[in-house]
Amino acid sequence: MNMKAAVVMGSVSDLPVLEPAIKRLKSFGVDVEARVISAHRTPDIAREFVTSAEENGIEVIITAAGKAAHLAGVLAAYTTLPVIGIPVKSSSLEGLDSLLSMVQMPPGIPVATVAIDGAENAAILAVQILSFRYPQLKQKLKEHKAELAKKVIEADKNLQKEIKI
Amino acid sequence: MNMKAAVVMGSVSDLPVLEPAIKRLKSFGVDVEARVISAHRTPDIAREFVTSAEENGIEVIITAAGKAAHLAGVLAAYTTLPVIGIPVKSSSLEGLDSLLSMVQMPPGIPVATVAIDGAENAAILAVQILSFRYPQLKQKLKEHKAELAKKVIEADKNLQKEIKI
Amino acid sequence: MNMKAAVVMGSVSDLPVLEPAIKRLKSFGVDVEARVISAHRTPDIAREFVTSAEENGIEVIITAAGKAAHLAGVLAAYTTLPVIGIPVKSSSLEGLDSLLSMVQMPPGIPVATVAIDGAENAAILAVQILSFRYPQLKQKLKEHKAELAKKVIEADKNLQKEIKI
Amino acid sequence: MNMKAAVVMGSVSDLPVLEPAIKRLKSFGVDVEARVISAHRTPDIAREFVTSAEENGIEVIITAAGKAAHLAGVLAAYTTLPVIGIPVKSSSLEGLDSLLSMVQMPPGIPVATVAIDGAENAAILAVQILSFRYPQLKQKLKEHKAELAKKVIEADKNLQKEIKI
Amino acid sequence: MNMKAAVVMGSVSDLPVLEPAIKRLKSFGVDVEARVISAHRTPDIAREFVTSAEENGIEVIITAAGKAAHLAGVLAAYTTLPVIGIPVKSSSLEGLDSLLSMVQMPPGIPVATVAIDGAENAAILAVQILSFRYPQLKQKLKEHKAELAKKVIEADKNLQKEIKI
Amino acid sequence: MNMKAAVVMGSVSDLPVLEPAIKRLKSFGVDVEARVISAHRTPDIAREFVTSAEENGIEVIITAAGKAAHLAGVLAAYTTLPVIGIPVKSSSLEGLDSLLSMVQMPPGIPVATVAIDGAENAAILAVQILSFRYPQLKQKLKEHKAELAKKVIEADKNLQKEIKI
Amino acid sequence: MNMKAAVVMGSVSDLPVLEPAIKRLKSFGVDVEARVISAHRTPDIAREFVTSAEENGIEVIITAAGKAAHLAGVLAAYTTLPVIGIPVKSSSLEGLDSLLSMVQMPPGIPVATVAIDGAENAAILAVQILSFRYPQLKQKLKEHKAELAKKVIEADKNLQKEIKI
Amino acid sequence: MNMKAAVVMGSVSDLPVLEPAIKRLKSFGVDVEARVISAHRTPDIAREFVTSAEENGIEVIITAAGKAAHLAGVLAAYTTLPVIGIPVKSSSLEGLDSLLSMVQMPPGIPVATVAIDGAENAAILAVQILSFRYPQLKQKLKEHKAELAKKVIEADKNLQKEIKI
Repeated sequence: MNMKAAVVMGSVSDLPVLEPAIKRLKSFGVDVEARVISAHRTPDIAREFVTSAEENGIEVIITAAGKAAHLAGVLAAYTTLPVIGIPVKSSSLEGLDSLLSMVQMPPGIPVATVAIDGAENAAILAVQILSFRYPQLKQKLKEHKAELAKKVIEADKNLQKEIKI
Repeated sequence: MNMKAAVVMGSVSDLPVLEPAIKRLKSFGVDVEARVISAHRTPDIAREFVTSAEENGIEVIITAAGKAAHLAGVLAAYTTLPVIGIPVKSSSLEGLDSLLSMVQMPPGIPVATVAIDGAENAAILAVQILSFRYPQLKQKLKEHKAELAKKVIEADKNLQKEIKI
Repeated sequence: MNMKAAVVMGSVSDLPVLEPAIKRLKSFGVDVEARVISAHRTPDIAREFVTSAEENGIEVIITAAGKAAHLAGVLAAYTTLPVIGIPVKSSSLEGLDSLLSMVQMPPGIPVATVAIDGAENAAILAVQILSFRYPQLKQKLKEHKAELAKKVIEADKNLQKEIKI
Repeated sequence: MNMKAAVVMGSVSDLPVLEPAIKRLKSFGVDVEARVISAHRTPDIAREFVTSAEENGIEVIITAAGKAAHLAGVLAAYTTLPVIGIPVKSSSLEGLDSLLSMVQMPPGIPVATVAIDGAENAAILAVQILSFRYPQLKQKLKEHKAELAKKVIEADKNLQKEIKI
Repeated sequence: MNMKAAVVMGSVSDLPVLEPAIKRLKSFGVDVEARVISAHRTPDIAREFVTSAEENGIEVIITAAGKAAHLAGVLAAYTTLPVIGIPVKSSSLEGLDSLLSMVQMPPGIPVATVAIDGAENAAILAVQILSFRYPQLKQKLKEHKAELAKKVIEADKNLQKEIKI
Repeated sequence: MNMKAAVVMGSVSDLPVLEPAIKRLKSFGVDVEARVISAHRTPDIAREFVTSAEENGIEVIITAAGKAAHLAGVLAAYTTLPVIGIPVKSSSLEGLDSLLSMVQMPPGIPVATVAIDGAENAAILAVQILSFRYPQLKQKLKEHKAELAKKVIEADKNLQKEIKI
Repeated sequence: MNMKAAVVMGSVSDLPVLEPAIKRLKSFGVDVEARVISAHRTPDIAREFVTSAEENGIEVIITAAGKAAHLAGVLAAYTTLPVIGIPVKSSSLEGLDSLLSMVQMPPGIPVATVAIDGAENAAILAVQILSFRYPQLKQKLKEHKAELAKKVIEADKNLQKEIKI
Repeated sequence: MNMKAAVVMGSVSDLPVLEPAIKRLKSFGVDVEARVISAHRTPDIAREFVTSAEENGIEVIITAAGKAAHLAGVLAAYTTLPVIGIPVKSSSLEGLDSLLSMVQMPPGIPVATVAIDGAENAAILAVQILSFRYPQLKQKLKEHKAELAKKVIEADKNLQKEIKI
C-alpha cells in the first residue's frame, strides 16, 4: 500500500496556492489525489468523498479555501482522518476571513491550520503525520530540514561575500 | 398551512442569543421549529434537516453560530430556502470570527447575515421574506415599525421632561 | 405583474461591483430598476424612491455602498421591503468599514448583508425571496444550484486529466 | 440670541456617553437641545429636526451612535451645519464598527469625528466652532485649556510628594 | 480681513493627499497657507507656527499625516483653533494606524477627524466652521451641496439611458 | 511502548487553558508529559527538551502560549515531530496576537494551529496523529465523535421538550 | 553620578501600569524620576522637561500612554536620548490604538516600543541600555535572567509533583 | 575597539528592508555584521551567534522578520544585549502579524520594536544606545536630527515657491 494524501480545493482558482503542497508531497514519495470539491456547491460530493476517503486509501487530507472557508471544517465533520487547512489570501481582508473561518473550530472537530497561503507547511505537516505509519519518511524529513538549513547557511555566506566586494 | 421558520443553533449555549428571534417570530404569528443541530458534530442530521425542510413546511431558516461559524453556510449549501445568519459574539475576537465566517460566502450560496448577536433583526428579516407569501404580515411589519418609532418618540419626550426638571 | 428588483448604488463608480447582480437577476427573468441614489448627497431622492418603491412595483432592494456605507440602512429605515446590502471593498481598510457599516444595524431595521463585493449572492438571495411570491423561480434556483455544482464537477474532472497528462 | 448646540442620540441608552458633552457645553454657557432621534426608526423626525435646525437656532450638532452608526451621516446629509460624531463603544467589536461607520464619510458630507466615547472632546470642538461667532468663548477655551494643564501639573506635584514619602 | 486656513503636512509626500483640500478651500475663496511642518522633525517650528497662527490670521488648521500621525494632536495641544485631521493611508496597515493615532485624542484636546485620505471633507468642514464668521460662505456651502446632488442625479439619468440602449 | 504526548506551556498560568487537553489525552489512554518550559526564559531547556523528545518516547507535542507566542515555533525548529499550537487568549488583543504569532510560520517549519484556547481540539488532533501508529485509537476517535453527536442530539431533544412545556 | 531614568506618564491614571517599571528600575539601582506630563495638556512642560533632561542627569526615558498615544513621539522629537514606549491598554480597542500610535514612528525619530502594558520590559530594556555606560549592570541583568529561568524551572518542578500526587 | 552592530535577517529576501539600517549605521561609523540566520531553520546557528555575540564585539542586535516573526525574541532569549526588532510587512495581513509577533514579548525579555519596515529607526535607536559607550556619537545624532529638520524646512520653502508660481 502506498502513502496517500488528498489535496482538496473548493475552486480550481485555488490550485496555484496548493501546487507547492502537491509538489512537496510528491517529493516525499506521497501519492496525491488532487480534487476540486466545494463544501457549498457540491456538498454531497464532499460528503461522499470524505466518508469513503479511508477505504480509498487516503490517509490525510489537505484543504485550501478562502473567504468563509468552510471546506476544511465540513470535511473534518465527517472523518477522524487529520484535516489540514490552508487559509487562502482572499480578494479582500487579506485572508483574515479565511484564517478565522478555518482555525476557530469548535471543540471536538480540529482543523490543523497552517499559515495563510502556507501550502508548503501543509505538506510538511502531512508528511510528519504520515511518518507515524511510514517510518522511512522520518529520515527524509530530517534531510529536508537539513536542506532548509543549508540554504540559509549558503544565503548567509553569499551575503558575506557580497558585502566584502 | 401555517407560516413556519426554523431557528437552528449549533449549540444549546447559543439559545439566549436566539431567544429574541423566537419571541419576535411568534409575535408575528410565525410557527417556530427550534433545533440544536451542529454542522460539525451532527453533519448528517444537518443535511437531513435541511433537505427535508421544505416538505416539513419550513419556509425560512435562521441560524446562529459562533467562532468558525459554518452552520449557516452548510445549510445554505443544501437548500434554496433563504438562510439568515446571526454571528454569535464568541468568547474571543468579539465575534469578528463569527461574522466573517458567515458573511463571506462564495458566489451562488448566499447567507443573509445580520449584526453580531442580532437575533431581533434576523426575525424581522424572516418576516419580511414571509410577507411575500403571507400578505397579512405586511401590515404587521408596518405596525412594528411604527411601534419602534413610537418608543423613540417617547424616549425623546421623557428626555425633555427629565432635562426640564 | 412582473417580478422587479431595484439595484441602487451610491455612486456610479460602484456599477462594476453591481453588474453581476443585475445580470444574474435578469437571467432569472427579474426586471431590474438600476439607480444611482446617494444617501448623503441626495437624501430626499433616496426617501422618495424608497417610500414609493412598493407602488412602483419594486419588491426587493439591493444596494451597494463603500466606506461609511449608510445607503442600505437609510433605505431600510423607510420600508418593510427586504433590503440586501453589498459592502463594497473601499479604497482603504479592505472593505471592513463597508461591511461593519452595513451589517451592524440596530434592532428592528435589518439589512441582509452578503459578502464584500458579493453581488452575485445579493441577486440569488433576492431571487430566493421573490420565489415566495413567484413559485416558478423555485425551479430555476434549483437549476442554478445544479449548474454551479456541474461546473465544480467539470473543474474536478479537468484537474484529473491535467494531472494524468 | 443664545449659543445653542443640539446633542442627538439614536437611543436613550447612549445618554451616559453623551452626558459629559452636555455638561461641558453648559459650563461654556451653551444652550443644549438634547434629543433622542433615530436615523433608522424615526428617519422622518431626523429629517424634520435637521432641516429646521437652523431656524430653531441650532448652530452645531453633536451626535452619538453605536454599531452601524449612521445618525451623524444622515443628519449631515441634510445640513451645512457642522456635525460632530461620537462613536459609541458598542457591545461588540470595541467600537471599531461605530468609528468606521462614522468617520469614513464620502466626499462632500463631512462628519467631524472624535474618539470612541469621546463626548468631552465633541463639546470642546463644538465650542471652538461656536467661538467663531461668539468671541467671548475664545477666552473661556483658553481658561479651560489652562485648567487642564493645571490638573496635570498638580497630579505631577502629588506624584512627587507621594514618591518622597 | 481675509478668510484663511492653514493646510499642514508632515512630509511633502502627503501633498497629493492634501491637494483636493487646498483646491476646495480656494474654490470657496478661502486663503490657504500650505506648510510642510513635522511634529517629530521640526517640533519647534510646529510650536511656533501654531502659537502664532491666530495673529497670522489663520482661523482653522487642516493637517494630514500618516502612520503614528501625531501632527494634528501636537498642533491641537497648543491652540484653541479647530484642528481638522486627515489620516493618510500609510504604506502599511491601510491607514488604520493613521486613523487611530489621530482620532483617539484624550479629553480636552479634540481633533476633528475625517475619513482616511478624506481631504475634500476636511475642506468642507473647514468652510462650515468659517461660515460662523463669514456668513457669505453659508450660501456657497448650500450651492456646493446642490451641485453634489446634481451630479448624482445626472449619473442616475445617464445610467437610465445607458441601460435603455 | 506507551503512547505519549508532551504538553508544554510557557508559563504555569497557562495550565487552566491546557487542562482540557491533558484530560482528553488521558481519556484516550495517552501518557502525558506536562511541562513548564519557556522559549524566552529557558531557551536551553526548550532545546534540550525537544531534541531529546523522541528518545524520551514523546511522539507529539502540544504547546500553549500567549501574546508573542513563540514556544510552538521554537520547538518546531528543532524537531520533525508534529507540533500542535494553542494560541492563548492573552490579556490584550483578544488572542489575535497569539494566533498570528503561532500560525504564520515560514515555509518548512509547520505548527498545526487550533482555535484560540482550543485545548480540546489540540488533544483530538494529537490522537488523530497517534492513531497512525496506534490503530486502536481509531475506534476510540469514532466513539468520541459519536458521543459528541449524541450530546447534540440530546440537547436538541431537551430543547423540544422545553419548548412544548 | 547616578544612573537615572525618567518614567513619564500622560495621566496619573497610567501609574498602575508603570509601577512595575519603577520597581524594576530601582531593583537595579537606577534612580527614577517619575513624572506626570501630558503631550497634549502640558506641551510646554513636556518640551522643557525633555530639552533639559540630559543636563538633569536623565539618561533614558520611559513613557506610557494610551489611545492616541503621542507622548513618546513628542518627547523623542526633542531628544537623542533613547525613548522607550509602553502602549497602555486603553478603554476601547484593546490597546491596538496605543500600540500603533506609538510604534509607527516616521524615519529618524525612533520610539523603542514594548508590549501593551509591558512595563517590566520597558525597565529591562532601559537597564540594558544603561549597561553600556554602567558595566556593573551587565552582571545584574544576567542574574535577573537567571532568576527568571529559575522561576520557570521551579514552576516546572512543582507541576511534576502536582501531577504525580 | 570598534563600534559594532549585528544586522540579522531570517531570510535574504528581507535584505531590501534592512538595507537602510545598514547604510545608516555605517554613516555613523558603526561596523555592521550582516547575517542571514533563521530562528526556525538554523536555530543552533542563531543560538551560537547570539551567545558568542558579545565576545565577537557585537554590542547591539538589529533583526528583521516577517509573519510569525520569532527571530528577535529567540535572540533576545539568549542575551542581555539590546535587541531591536523591525517587523517586516509580510505578504498578507499588512505586517500586523509581524508587529504583534515581535512586540508582544513576555516580561523579562524585551524586544525594542520599531515601525513596520522601519529600518531607518532601528539604526538610529542602535546609535542612540551605542552613544552611551561612544560619546562621539552623541554629536552625530544631533547633527542627523538637525539635517532631518533642515530637509523639512527646505521642503516647506520649496512648497511656498511652488505655490507662488
